[in-house]
Amino acid sequence: MREIPGVPYSFKDPELLTLALSHRSIGRLNNERLEFLGDSILNFVVSACLFDLRSDNSEGDLTRLRARVVRGETLAELALGLKLGDYIKLGEGELKSGGFKRNSILANTLEAVFGAIYLDGGFESCEKVIRHVCDPYIALLPEANELKDPKTRLQEWLQGHGYSLPEYTVLTDDGPPHRKVFLVECISQAAGIKVTGKSSSRRKAEQIAALAALDIIAENSKK
Amino acid sequence: MREIPGVPYSFKDPELLTLALSHRSIGRLNNERLEFLGDSILNFVVSACLFDLRSDNSEGDLTRLRARVVRGETLAELALGLKLGDYIKLGEGELKSGGFKRNSILANTLEAVFGAIYLDGGFESCEKVIRHVCDPYIALLPEANELKDPKTRLQEWLQGHGYSLPEYTVLTDDGPPHRKVFLVECISQAAGIKVTGKSSSRRKAEQIAALAALDIIAENSKK
Repeated sequence: MREIPGVPYSFKDPELLTLALSHRSIGRLNNERLEFLGDSILNFVVSACLFDLRSDNSEGDLTRLRARVVRGETLAELALGLKLGDYIKLGEGELKSGGFKRNSILANTLEAVFGAIYLDGGFESCEKVIRHVCDPYIALLPEANELKDPKTRLQEWLQGHGYSLPEYTVLTDDGPPHRKVFLVECISQAAGIKVTGKSSSRRKAEQIAALAALDIIAENSKK
Repeated sequence: MREIPGVPYSFKDPELLTLALSHRSIGRLNNERLEFLGDSILNFVVSACLFDLRSDNSEGDLTRLRARVVRGETLAELALGLKLGDYIKLGEGELKSGGFKRNSILANTLEAVFGAIYLDGGFESCEKVIRHVCDPYIALLPEANELKDPKTRLQEWLQGHGYSLPEYTVLTDDGPPHRKVFLVECISQAAGIKVTGKSSSRRKAEQIAALAALDIIAENSKK
């Protein structure tokens, strides 16, 4: 096999493609080293693309945007679009447990395919394929600011409007030690905000409270 | 300025080099975005180089080796070798506090220079420069195994010799809460090992104890 339908590249060395599709459950000859290589070239090509497209974004913004593209969840989605799961070679155990559908395996295999294309055809061929696969996703990325977590966004809004930082307080933490539920209050007196958030971790409860605060701010700004 | 002595590249656009050398303390036009770009191309070029050189190493080994090359400490060392500090443009405050000698500033500026070369001359020009700067360091990298932390190496040695995992126990943790000193014991009865390690953190004390155990193993193997 020299090609995967949907990936616009034909391998000179078909064994490289076979290796890229071989999950480690199949044995010693597997795609893990190619995945290492492909991960790093993907990271670079996406970085260069975002650097061009988002000329107004800071280094921090670019880092957040890139993370959204190269995270396992996104890569698995892109791999699914290419029907990569139909071509992955798995060992018996993984095959029975439906490994070809697992996000991590799909994502890692896509990276390994990129690594194999780089070895087979060089940097520019690989760059073209990565752009072909990723550009539609990159075109739909939100504004960098929307990728910030709610606490950061709330803090930036308050500071931008001359208010002091919000205060987070744990009101209650009920339940046994390993299954606690945290109720956290978020207050900004100056901005007239007092909301709560509830979750199994204190950090998440704070984020949920911050999101509630941002909702109030958005509502008020419509009035 | 179109060149930095020691970096074999002449810029078509000298303003790109100026930007690469401009620390954020100098103002809005600084090298942070170029650093983002340079970091990702450096990461890729070093990955591809290690992939070639270390054909016997696993993905995990390659990741450890790469981390050793692209960490701030190494990059600062390489930047010092290029006397990059003589060319960095700093704002008043950083200038007074000797910012041009700071490791993080040296490392980030080197990455920014790589990013600028990529923009100015394309991938292959940049790859050549990165290889020129990094190859001497890469050639002296130790075996991947030596980069593993002592606890991991001890565990692998014991498992490889059919022994069970070592046991770590905190013997004492004296001192006030913020300045505790942990004394940790590491025991492998089967292998005849019983050593201790002391540090301000429990994790470090365990690593120090594991290192002592590895020393004993090395001594015994000489007999």
